[in-house]
Amino acid sequence: MKIGFIGLGVMGAPMAGHLHRVFGLVGIHTRTRSKADPLLSQGVAWFETPQALAQQCDVVCTMLGFPPDVHAVYFGPEGILAGAHSGLCCIDFTTTRPQLAKDIASQLTTCGGFFFDAPVSGGDVGARQATLSIMVGGSKTQFPIIQSLLEAVGQKVVYQGHAGAGQHTKMTNQIVIAGTMIGVCEALLYGVRAGLDLETMLSSIRPGAAGCWTLENLAPRILKQDFEPGFYIEHFVKDMEIALNEASRLGICLPGLALVHQFYRAAQNIGLGKKGTQALYRVLESLASPT
Amino acid sequence: MKIGFIGLGVMGAPMAGHLHRVFGLVGIHTRTRSKADPLLSQGVAWFETPQALAQQCDVVCTMLGFPPDVHAVYFGPEGILAGAHSGLCCIDFTTTRPQLAKDIASQLTTCGGFFFDAPVSGGDVGARQATLSIMVGGSKTQFPIIQSLLEAVGQKVVYQGHAGAGQHTKMTNQIVIAGTMIGVCEALLYGVRAGLDLETMLSSIRPGAAGCWTLENLAPRILKQDFEPGFYIEHFVKDMEIALNEASRLGICLPGLALVHQFYRAAQNIGLGKKGTQALYRVLESLASPT
Repeated sequence: MKIGFIGLGVMGAPMAGHLHRVFGLVGIHTRTRSKADPLLSQGVAWFETPQALAQQCDVVCTMLGFPPDVHAVYFGPEGILAGAHSGLCCIDFTTTRPQLAKDIASQLTTCGGFFFDAPVSGGDVGARQATLSIMVGGSKTQFPIIQSLLEAVGQKVVYQGHAGAGQHTKMTNQIVIAGTMIGVCEALLYGVRAGLDLETMLSSIRPGAAGCWTLENLAPRILKQDFEPGFYIEHFVKDMEIALNEASRLGICLPGLALVHQFYRAAQNIGLGKKGTQALYRVLESLASPT
Repeated sequence: MKIGFIGLGVMGAPMAGHLHRVFGLVGIHTRTRSKADPLLSQGVAWFETPQALAQQCDVVCTMLGFPPDVHAVYFGPEGILAGAHSGLCCIDFTTTRPQLAKDIASQLTTCGGFFFDAPVSGGDVGARQATLSIMVGGSKTQFPIIQSLLEAVGQKVVYQGHAGAGQHTKMTNQIVIAGTMIGVCEALLYGVRAGLDLETMLSSIRPGAAGCWTLENLAPRILKQDFEPGFYIEHFVKDMEIALNEASRLGICLPGLALVHQFYRAAQNIGLGKKGTQALYRVLESLASPT
């Protein structure tokens, strides 16, 4: 199985590394060529375009940033689809629009290939440790072909349904996180202003009904005023915008998500777009009276 | 140590039962006398008023509904304070206003007694199994006197600080829950409308960054359309109102909590006040287009 990988960012680089270690990569492509150096030095070939890479591969994996990046890499003049051939399998790990996943799937099917949307959760740590949760949409009959490949980068690989279902599942993940994030940030601000000892407070509330990953993993960073990513605010904003657009299309209201999205937009407005999602705390803090 | 208990509702009855089993109760009082029958049949004495009970006790515990109930039981003409004496210790398990806790503490100190606010988390199940988390505010030097008593009803007993600190800690707990609750309800609604298999979706998102008690414990009930309490919406609304009032006083904005509070008020408006907090799902569902 000749595998290629496109997109060697914070997530893509370690994921490509795992695939190379387990299966051997045929070739790579990424926007900033210098990011490819570690894999090139291990003998992986560089390809100038997604099209050229697709022509030489059985499987092409992509891990990009925003939906327009995904669109360009697949549909662009030198994109993957321009190099598509019968039997080509593409897997997109990017969190992107469910409809875009469906469009790629449909186009690739026309070329005799097949496509899986396979967004991940678990962040840079999960990517480095190959412990990602991977939510897969696409053909059920063809899923077994790529399962072992996905298991080289993820710990929990679950087939979720037809094309786009991986993206939809990722959206539900992000919607829950929007809620836990504002709840935790507001609770910490309340605790600070009420004069509580925050560590002692956390020891009471963490084991009970308020317990959540965010309280466990991000509250301690907030207490240390550590707002580094983790997961970038600008990527979270993108995800929330996809979810809100989908919600409109699906005929549902998500008022909590809409509110949290606005406060994260505010975070971007005040220059926090490259900070971690826990920096929502700083937005709420900026709305409080002087102490 | 002669212990009395006032308030034998869903939470109070099992808590009083544990205290009677471990230490023996001297007397009880509650609004609806029939609720006292099980303990009266075990030889516990009935007292017509909180005042009369306080006169005969070293320790009086209260577990009531709303802040006005707490106010009446302590400050009323036949209330606990009317029967206060030197050395009387009162413990209020009700979730109520931090300022009310401070007022009781100050009044009881004047009478030579002392007071602890000790709101709990863990619900009716925690009360029955004596596994509650108890967040304690009051005198640090006197806390050891009541610790073993609290450990008869709770699994995690943590001293949080001066009078009111127990209530403030409980507020941080409720603020987090407001966030997790709207996040989980919106995610489930999204998943339903996107056509996902919800059990499969949950298997992908539960182990990761979206993981929370609400997703673990209440999402399965929502999927079964089980909206029974658990924790009453009308009590949660009360708690959120206390937190929002405190937030104003503390000079902070809690936009997430304010939004969730409004949707729970809407839940009350459409007759869901006696349902469990997971019935927020039904409010969001009622705002969606017909399927």
